[in-house]
Amino acid sequence: MEFNMDFKPLTVQPQEIESLSFDIITAEIGEHPFRADQYPVVQRVIHASADFDLGRSLVFHRDAIEAGIAAIRAGKPVFADVQMIQSGISKPRIEKFGGRVEVYISDPDVAVEAKRLNLTRAIIATRKAVAEAPDGIFVIGNAPTALLELIRLIKAGEARPSLVIGMPVGFVSAAESKDELAKLIDGDVPFITNRGRKGGSPVSVAALNALSLLAEQQ
Amino acid sequence: MEFNMDFKPLTVQPQEIESLSFDIITAEIGEHPFRADQYPVVQRVIHASADFDLGRSLVFHRDAIEAGIAAIRAGKPVFADVQMIQSGISKPRIEKFGGRVEVYISDPDVAVEAKRLNLTRAIIATRKAVAEAPDGIFVIGNAPTALLELIRLIKAGEARPSLVIGMPVGFVSAAESKDELAKLIDGDVPFITNRGRKGGSPVSVAALNALSLLAEQQ
Repeated sequence: MEFNMDFKPLTVQPQEIESLSFDIITAEIGEHPFRADQYPVVQRVIHASADFDLGRSLVFHRDAIEAGIAAIRAGKPVFADVQMIQSGISKPRIEKFGGRVEVYISDPDVAVEAKRLNLTRAIIATRKAVAEAPDGIFVIGNAPTALLELIRLIKAGEARPSLVIGMPVGFVSAAESKDELAKLIDGDVPFITNRGRKGGSPVSVAALNALSLLAEQQ
Repeated sequence: MEFNMDFKPLTVQPQEIESLSFDIITAEIGEHPFRADQYPVVQRVIHASADFDLGRSLVFHRDAIEAGIAAIRAGKPVFADVQMIQSGISKPRIEKFGGRVEVYISDPDVAVEAKRLNLTRAIIATRKAVAEAPDGIFVIGNAPTALLELIRLIKAGEARPSLVIGMPVGFVSAAESKDELAKLIDGDVPFITNRGRKGGSPVSVAALNALSLLAEQQ
């Protein structure tokens, strides 16, 4: 049989793969500006993307880690902008603290309202989530309009999220929406975001899962 | 109100955003080695990742586009390695041709068998899918062991997929697993893969969704 490989996938277990991956990341990341308490998030974002540039592009509000862990432990609801994020989030670690993961973009009432107002479903879904829990955890990895609407509601005093993970990916409005979030750096809403076009569901999920792991370990 | 932005997110609809994104990609991609019929896949992979390097790292088997479209139109089942991929795939476009999207990694019988044999659940889930439909469409964006097992079954004559989309992301075995797939370039199994560590669910989903759009338009 010519199927010859240097590694032995059949004996490598997922936990070993993760541990070895983290060793590689630590060995290769070099100098970075992140605090020790922020590093687990950076590490998991790089792990999910295999992209050191993306990891280095992260921007943390000073309270993001502490407040994010506290919000998960308090069972604050998690609102995702798309189904892929809901699928990726480690739900048992959210639910054990009384939390849940919701995504409203495909709800029939959201579609009806979006059509009536000629707005994106992402905007209406954000409004629905804020109306339900202004202090929820918001994980936005795709829709710039969802993030921009959340920022608008924060500025209007209608939303006061416990944590915003805002990392939309794309060529239109994604980088700009994250720049708007980063401008709130001196405000009191904790957030994690990144600079540039890159981002997406897996890295947003990775950031939240890093925090829920820390929440579990405390 | 100080919320001033150069773009107008509240009036931009998703279709316009996508169209504008594709224009930006076409303007920025520069020279590339891909055929005209492969370009829609390249374009959607870049759109999903905002990463031109990732797009340029794609490798197509000569029959991947034609065979992929034919497989979708024939209603071949789609097997995803993780739930996030199942969530991201545009299911109505698969189902209208009689297809469906399955993911077996969380099935209780898969967990039991993986534990019994001391193999990853991804390997057992791949075996389950191949047993069900050796000529299915396999979309693997995360687990190198799933892709390596599928390659092993192809070489053993037990699997003859209609299409393999194999783009695991990560630091351990991901690049190697894709190199193994790329070695099948002169074989008769159509595939789409990429070189290097990057990859993941959104780009794997983007590749399949590009093909299902083409299938719908034919």
